[in-house]
Amino acid sequence: MNDSDGENDTKAAMMEATYRALCQHGYSDTSISKIAAEFEKSKSLLYYHYDDKEELLEDFLHYMLDQLEADLASIEAETAHEELLSIVDRLLPEEINDEQMRFRRAVLELRAQAPYHDTYREQFARSDELILSTLVDVIERGIENGEFRSVNSREKAEFVYSLAYGAMERGIPLEDPETLNSTRETVVSHLEAQLVKFA
Amino acid sequence: MNDSDGENDTKAAMMEATYRALCQHGYSDTSISKIAAEFEKSKSLLYYHYDDKEELLEDFLHYMLDQLEADLASIEAETAHEELLSIVDRLLPEEINDEQMRFRRAVLELRAQAPYHDTYREQFARSDELILSTLVDVIERGIENGEFRSVNSREKAEFVYSLAYGAMERGIPLEDPETLNSTRETVVSHLEAQLVKFA
Repeated sequence: MNDSDGENDTKAAMMEATYRALCQHGYSDTSISKIAAEFEKSKSLLYYHYDDKEELLEDFLHYMLDQLEADLASIEAETAHEELLSIVDRLLPEEINDEQMRFRRAVLELRAQAPYHDTYREQFARSDELILSTLVDVIERGIENGEFRSVNSREKAEFVYSLAYGAMERGIPLEDPETLNSTRETVVSHLEAQLVKFA
Repeated sequence: MNDSDGENDTKAAMMEATYRALCQHGYSDTSISKIAAEFEKSKSLLYYHYDDKEELLEDFLHYMLDQLEADLASIEAETAHEELLSIVDRLLPEEINDEQMRFRRAVLELRAQAPYHDTYREQFARSDELILSTLVDVIERGIENGEFRSVNSREKAEFVYSLAYGAMERGIPLEDPETLNSTRETVVSHLEAQLVKFA
């Protein structure tokens, strides 16, 4: 293993410790010492890299964005229709377990802090744009290959994303998975009705 | 002025001080002493009523719910269609000034804390339900009087509310009023197309 592999391992271990701390304590109650408590390597290594929680969280948001990008790129689908449903599934999963619920809660807390932290805001703006452009791409591909009606792809993407975000924002802080599920159905049936030619 | 008037005045002044502190500092950075700094009467009066910020915020959320209820009840409209648009206008105002933007930001922060505070969660669940039931009522009235198509009123209400919440959650932390405006147009044109018989 060369130095760079070692560094990557350390970075990944720090990001995983952050993830676990956020799931366990939420964002407000997470401190750098609580993240250090989840870190399996030497604590001093973590304090060597980061001065405070904000600095660590900035890197964590960046790491999440990379994960999201890899996840979206990994979707394999025969048709644009199938791919679109896979993206909706990422936004509003049919099943959401306790850990995922806790993590999404923490992300909503972080997002609510975006107005007060430029770097948070920048990362969220990027991940929003990544999701929107992925939606736009798949809708355009579906229009080009004749699967979808000729709609305004950006408008449809904004619509899907706002609806998904609204369901999360409504359902997650209130611990109401029902809102997520019913919105999922609304998004899917809307897409089938408005977009897909032969649903 | 009798005792009860005096108490109501004090209460209102404390709630207004809380509103100003939230607009100025956001939720995380608001402390009971920052609220006291905005309070025009004796500081000790505020500390006499509340031990900490959480206790004060609980009352503030309750107060906001009363305001929302009064505001929704005050809508005067000739038709169900007009009334529905007035409600959408409350959720996604066409113009949003800096103070309103700051206040909505603070409310999203508070909502993100709902998983960790039972009383916050309870108040948000109540205000969501108030808005949804107001939407359901107006949609049903429109169906009964022949203005609207015969739709599933609860489903339509959930749809409008999730879309409006999603636009707020997307646009407000990222300070992007454009998302609010374009979603407003999407909601309105969707309602005109799907609901209104003679738009």
